[in-house]
Amino acid sequence: MKSITAKETFASSSHIVLPNDTNTLGNLMGGQLLNWLDVIGAICAHRHCRRVVVTASVGKVAFQKPISLGDIVTIEAKVSRAFTSSMEVVMDVFVENHMTGKKTVHNEAIYTFVAVDQIGRPIEVPALLPESDEEIERYEAALRRRQLNLLMAGKIKANEAEELKAFFE
Amino acid sequence: MKSITAKETFASSSHIVLPNDTNTLGNLMGGQLLNWLDVIGAICAHRHCRRVVVTASVGKVAFQKPISLGDIVTIEAKVSRAFTSSMEVVMDVFVENHMTGKKTVHNEAIYTFVAVDQIGRPIEVPALLPESDEEIERYEAALRRRQLNLLMAGKIKANEAEELKAFFE
Amino acid sequence: MKSITAKETFASSSHIVLPNDTNTLGNLMGGQLLNWLDVIGAICAHRHCRRVVVTASVGKVAFQKPISLGDIVTIEAKVSRAFTSSMEVVMDVFVENHMTGKKTVHNEAIYTFVAVDQIGRPIEVPALLPESDEEIERYEAALRRRQLNLLMAGKIKANEAEELKAFFE
Amino acid sequence: MKSITAKETFASSSHIVLPNDTNTLGNLMGGQLLNWLDVIGAICAHRHCRRVVVTASVGKVAFQKPISLGDIVTIEAKVSRAFTSSMEVVMDVFVENHMTGKKTVHNEAIYTFVAVDQIGRPIEVPALLPESDEEIERYEAALRRRQLNLLMAGKIKANEAEELKAFFE
Amino acid sequence: MKSITAKETFASSSHIVLPNDTNTLGNLMGGQLLNWLDVIGAICAHRHCRRVVVTASVGKVAFQKPISLGDIVTIEAKVSRAFTSSMEVVMDVFVENHMTGKKTVHNEAIYTFVAVDQIGRPIEVPALLPESDEEIERYEAALRRRQLNLLMAGKIKANEAEELKAFFE
Amino acid sequence: MKSITAKETFASSSHIVLPNDTNTLGNLMGGQLLNWLDVIGAICAHRHCRRVVVTASVGKVAFQKPISLGDIVTIEAKVSRAFTSSMEVVMDVFVENHMTGKKTVHNEAIYTFVAVDQIGRPIEVPALLPESDEEIERYEAALRRRQLNLLMAGKIKANEAEELKAFFE
Repeated sequence: MKSITAKETFASSSHIVLPNDTNTLGNLMGGQLLNWLDVIGAICAHRHCRRVVVTASVGKVAFQKPISLGDIVTIEAKVSRAFTSSMEVVMDVFVENHMTGKKTVHNEAIYTFVAVDQIGRPIEVPALLPESDEEIERYEAALRRRQLNLLMAGKIKANEAEELKAFFE
Repeated sequence: MKSITAKETFASSSHIVLPNDTNTLGNLMGGQLLNWLDVIGAICAHRHCRRVVVTASVGKVAFQKPISLGDIVTIEAKVSRAFTSSMEVVMDVFVENHMTGKKTVHNEAIYTFVAVDQIGRPIEVPALLPESDEEIERYEAALRRRQLNLLMAGKIKANEAEELKAFFE
Repeated sequence: MKSITAKETFASSSHIVLPNDTNTLGNLMGGQLLNWLDVIGAICAHRHCRRVVVTASVGKVAFQKPISLGDIVTIEAKVSRAFTSSMEVVMDVFVENHMTGKKTVHNEAIYTFVAVDQIGRPIEVPALLPESDEEIERYEAALRRRQLNLLMAGKIKANEAEELKAFFE
Repeated sequence: MKSITAKETFASSSHIVLPNDTNTLGNLMGGQLLNWLDVIGAICAHRHCRRVVVTASVGKVAFQKPISLGDIVTIEAKVSRAFTSSMEVVMDVFVENHMTGKKTVHNEAIYTFVAVDQIGRPIEVPALLPESDEEIERYEAALRRRQLNLLMAGKIKANEAEELKAFFE
Repeated sequence: MKSITAKETFASSSHIVLPNDTNTLGNLMGGQLLNWLDVIGAICAHRHCRRVVVTASVGKVAFQKPISLGDIVTIEAKVSRAFTSSMEVVMDVFVENHMTGKKTVHNEAIYTFVAVDQIGRPIEVPALLPESDEEIERYEAALRRRQLNLLMAGKIKANEAEELKAFFE
Repeated sequence: MKSITAKETFASSSHIVLPNDTNTLGNLMGGQLLNWLDVIGAICAHRHCRRVVVTASVGKVAFQKPISLGDIVTIEAKVSRAFTSSMEVVMDVFVENHMTGKKTVHNEAIYTFVAVDQIGRPIEVPALLPESDEEIERYEAALRRRQLNLLMAGKIKANEAEELKAFFE
């Protein structure tokens, strides 16, 4: 299977924060942003493997500054690394103020998707080829995150997670 | 006011066609696509003028091939030309088949937005600076479309629409 | 196939403008109105041919005065003319102010729908029989609009569009 | 305050049953129909009093035959009677099969709305003037329904509900 | 078929009132509450019979105090009695003020659901076994409500509705 | 400030998986579940502090078995521990098959919410008092999770995270 470059998996989406997306303070609710991230992350993973994909997990997502009603939220997604049948997608969230147009980085989110066949069984996906410095850095971090997750789930032992271990030393 | 390049106004959005977006044949309903076009067109116009914008009109939109449930619809928008307080936005619609990943051009749509102040009065916007060949071509066509609309609305006379006239000769 | 009168195709719908239908100025967004027009236009075309219909195109729609949160929007639709497998639907939009109850004409929209069979192939529809003066006027204008569209799409030549030509002379 | 004829309060709306409106058998869920009835009933009551109205109660609604995905549901509403600040609205539900176009009566629903001022206090509404035989019949039944409700709520005694009593004798 | 206790059928749901759920006074619209009641009532009836259920009817629902934007609405549902293939569900609605957290009883609603097989035909359901005083009281009231409904629908005669009659004497 | 027991913060919600909640395989999309978790988690945190709460972060959420169209998803939430102005909420997700009624544990999710005043500044919340064994276990794990997060964010040093350290030894 031919490797796919991170750039080929790029997917992006912009949303205007509507009244129903906000809490009683008039700010975007976290759950709505998590939902938008899931959709564009799935499109990104689909562009990597061109198969039906399902969400396998969501990594920690922190919500910093509040996002206001009317603001424009843009999500940019790229696959950071592929493992057998799963793809880790790293997404950057940007916000444009609807009055001043000022654009700020809001946060980063990491979701994992699995490619499945018509009856939902996992199927193999191509390798991911990182090119830019940021892509390479995220490609390497993806392996450490995977080892940490396997470690926490008790599926590997601490001494098997070499890259993770090296990082802490 | 400093001119804005067409590139600076670029806005894009990708959607997965969900069950509620489809008719009884399982194809995307036209009204849902018109709605998505309006949102991303407004974001594009906002990036041009950094003010609140409202939809002024929708040009003719033709729906060619049906778009299926699960397909990915990507809309790419750029301002084609600005006139005093209005901005014409040209949008290209692409569709990726959810089984094969095959990407096709679906259609083109043209919406006009007006920049308004807090109480809804039109306000002046910067000029649009086209750079690429396609941008220049769309910039020129925008003027002809505007003349045709003013002509049809009885606001100018046929001999005032010089660019339009020249085009038919 | 027996002709259908315009009156038999009449369809109407009323909506209260809810928070999620509005922009940051508290006015109805254009895309939501386009979506409502599509649904009621499809019901109208269905009443003409009693078959599944799909949106073929949307003509120019201009949004004049803003419509406020809480206002009541009523759309009235009738088929203006049928051509082989397509039906042109003309819709009038009325707005009632939610405080004063004052009813005003907002705008007019023209959509075209195509009747299709179970696998999406176009099928023939009955002729439309206009009765009132307005119906007859819209029936004639529908032909000119169709010629203009065919002309613009390069499918007919200027001298074939007789009715259109006569209108400009 | 000038009486309002039942005809002046007429409101109507048509909906296509979309996937998200249906249960696992592909039929319209009762709750969605109740929601549609509430919106068009409120528009009808608003046309009677031209004030903000709020739902006061829903009478018994029975759902007979299932309504299928894609079918067209049309609701027709008229105020049946007004009492001080409340209006009883009687609504007829019709269904058109999306394949055959066959139109059938589905059921009848009765909602009561109250007119309120800006801070939500009840305000007086005009009397309702029934004209047709059906309007007069529903006007009389509205009084009996009101007496039955007051009786059940313990607000009047059985011998005060004269019209209701006469009906059972 | 083994009887099911009322407690086993318990279902509950909490909602935050969002902008799109409210009218122009910022209060929850009745239709949205009716919709929420239908969903949780169906879940409750499903827990009784573990079959697909459809809404058969809604009893009178009165809306007392307005519920504000941001308030938390909690619905608690239990089957009150089962009859052949139908189940009456009684639901209590509670509201928590989003500023003070104060919890109040809002109202009570009664829906009836029918268990159906894959092609929509009614199927038998287990009996309901009430245990607490409130459950027993509602179990008995359910029979009187059923008799009143059959009486009103002309399906039984007044002297056949013994429990109802006894209640009025 | 008086401590709040975990039991007092209990919040729960049940949802039927509707067509628009599903992907092309007919299974619940992850983003929709994340959205439901956010709403019920916020209600739970609100019951702890009776103030407006905003989502601060989402911990890792893994989606195991697919959840089908029509299945009933029940989320049960309790605050696990409070820290100054934040509350960690642990949620259990259960799924009932819509055909068999079989109930299974689906997964567990952990969200953190912050109590804020009217202009969005963090405010102090009461301590959480765990009572049952599970509540005590989750209360202790919450501290380790917090230390791990602070450690990862570089806000504390490894030797300051005593409870976390002890856990690994």
